Amino acid sequence: MSDGSLPSSPQIGLFGFGAFGRLIAPHLAAHCPVRVHDPLLPPGPLMPGMAATNLEDAAACPIVILAVPVARMQAVARAIAPHLPRHALVADVGSVKILPAEILCRELPDHVRIIATHPLFGPQSARDGIAGHRIVLCPLRRTRPGAVAAFLRRTLGLDVILTTPDAHDRDAAMAQGLTHLLARILSEMGPMPERISTSSFDLIRAATAMVRDDAPDVSHAIAHLNPHAGAVRRRFLAIAGRIAESDDAKDAAPFPERAFG
Amino acid sequence: MSDGSLPSSPQIGLFGFGAFGRLIAPHLAAHCPVRVHDPLLPPGPLMPGMAATNLEDAAACPIVILAVPVARMQAVARAIAPHLPRHALVADVGSVKILPAEILCRELPDHVRIIATHPLFGPQSARDGIAGHRIVLCPLRRTRPGAVAAFLRRTLGLDVILTTPDAHDRDAAMAQGLTHLLARILSEMGPMPERISTSSFDLIRAATAMVRDDAPDVSHAIAHLNPHAGAVRRRFLAIAGRIAESDDAKDAAPFPERAFG
Repeated sequence: MSDGSLPSSPQIGLFGFGAFGRLIAPHLAAHCPVRVHDPLLPPGPLMPGMAATNLEDAAACPIVILAVPVARMQAVARAIAPHLPRHALVADVGSVKILPAEILCRELPDHVRIIATHPLFGPQSARDGIAGHRIVLCPLRRTRPGAVAAFLRRTLGLDVILTTPDAHDRDAAMAQGLTHLLARILSEMGPMPERISTSSFDLIRAATAMVRDDAPDVSHAIAHLNPHAGAVRRRFLAIAGRIAESDDAKDAAPFPERAFG
Repeated sequence: MSDGSLPSSPQIGLFGFGAFGRLIAPHLAAHCPVRVHDPLLPPGPLMPGMAATNLEDAAACPIVILAVPVARMQAVARAIAPHLPRHALVADVGSVKILPAEILCRELPDHVRIIATHPLFGPQSARDGIAGHRIVLCPLRRTRPGAVAAFLRRTLGLDVILTTPDAHDRDAAMAQGLTHLLARILSEMGPMPERISTSSFDLIRAATAMVRDDAPDVSHAIAHLNPHAGAVRRRFLAIAGRIAESDDAKDAAPFPERAFG
């Protein structure tokens, strides 16, 4: 394992069986045995190739995936640290990357290989399958991402994007931050027109509907645990304010009736 | 004509050969001879069944469609009024409805039948055809919309929505107003991430791209000639401000690290 390659059928320890853990578990179990640990899940078989188990047992796998809220990442990392086998590969799937990267590098033993990931899909967008969707990989420690990327590309059919936690969080602050902000604004504005609408507004309503039921932990991480989120939010608001002010001034101007000839 | 039915192949006078006039002209010319008038278009044949002509000649048709900017509607209505035949049917296609409805009812002779329309599509959304798209009809004067609606539904394949100018403008202030406002905000925010993005944000980028190249006249009408637009804009900004303020306060709160077990 120290050469970065994956053994033919390594056991995977999956921590967290929330919306995202449940989404990816069957895709993993189709290729490797999966041991799931979630405090809410009693030990026992879940489906062929997948069983719920205790924390120590799931942490003893050569590959460990943390599908837990970012706000729980530190507690989980501390809890599994003593049980990880030598050269285990640990990956998170959080919606932000700078903070989990810091936590995992700080809390996990030095022999552990660490890769931060952000699958850019969820139960809504991947309800017809995960193939064709995107995943961000940030290799952090003792990781050559080749074998992981090859598995994600060839076996799961994902589009793999290699980058750094900071570059990820900058772009995600725009992509996810603005989508969630807009969804919250439209939700507070009340019922949106459905019949008297345009193709473009239909897309906006569809986009906001996709994130409206995201877990509160995901929305919280996107708004508060991405260090670039606040600046994007304040810039959006400042620009919206300038546009509204300029529009109000134009409203007050005389009607721009034009001649026809 | 006074019974509201359409003759088998009435001549149509089309005023305005901008982006929208050019989009619908071939769909009309496939069924009726079309005489186009636009100050920028020299008289002469345009395609089979369609010729550019002078104002008087186009206004002499039994059906006249005004595909001109809302800000020019009054000048055009005054110019064509003396040339319209008895019981002519005049329809506009503006993005707002209260203001054109007032102008047409005020400026056109009493014998003229008037129907205000808003096709909820444009060159972007209908680049693969207009069938399946929506059109709003507001019958205003001496119009039973049955024959017009039947032509739009059966012959052009459009989804017809019957309503009033005020109900239209209320919904359009949300649908079109918010789409255009968002497109302007995102455009000022600069380049958006394309790789590190989500399916939902991809939809938002696609929506704003669809309206980004709309004619300035269309954007102006949506922002300033819909009497409900200002209230929607100010409400959007007030809610965005409240959310940003609450998020800033949460950012300042201690990190919500949670236990795992």
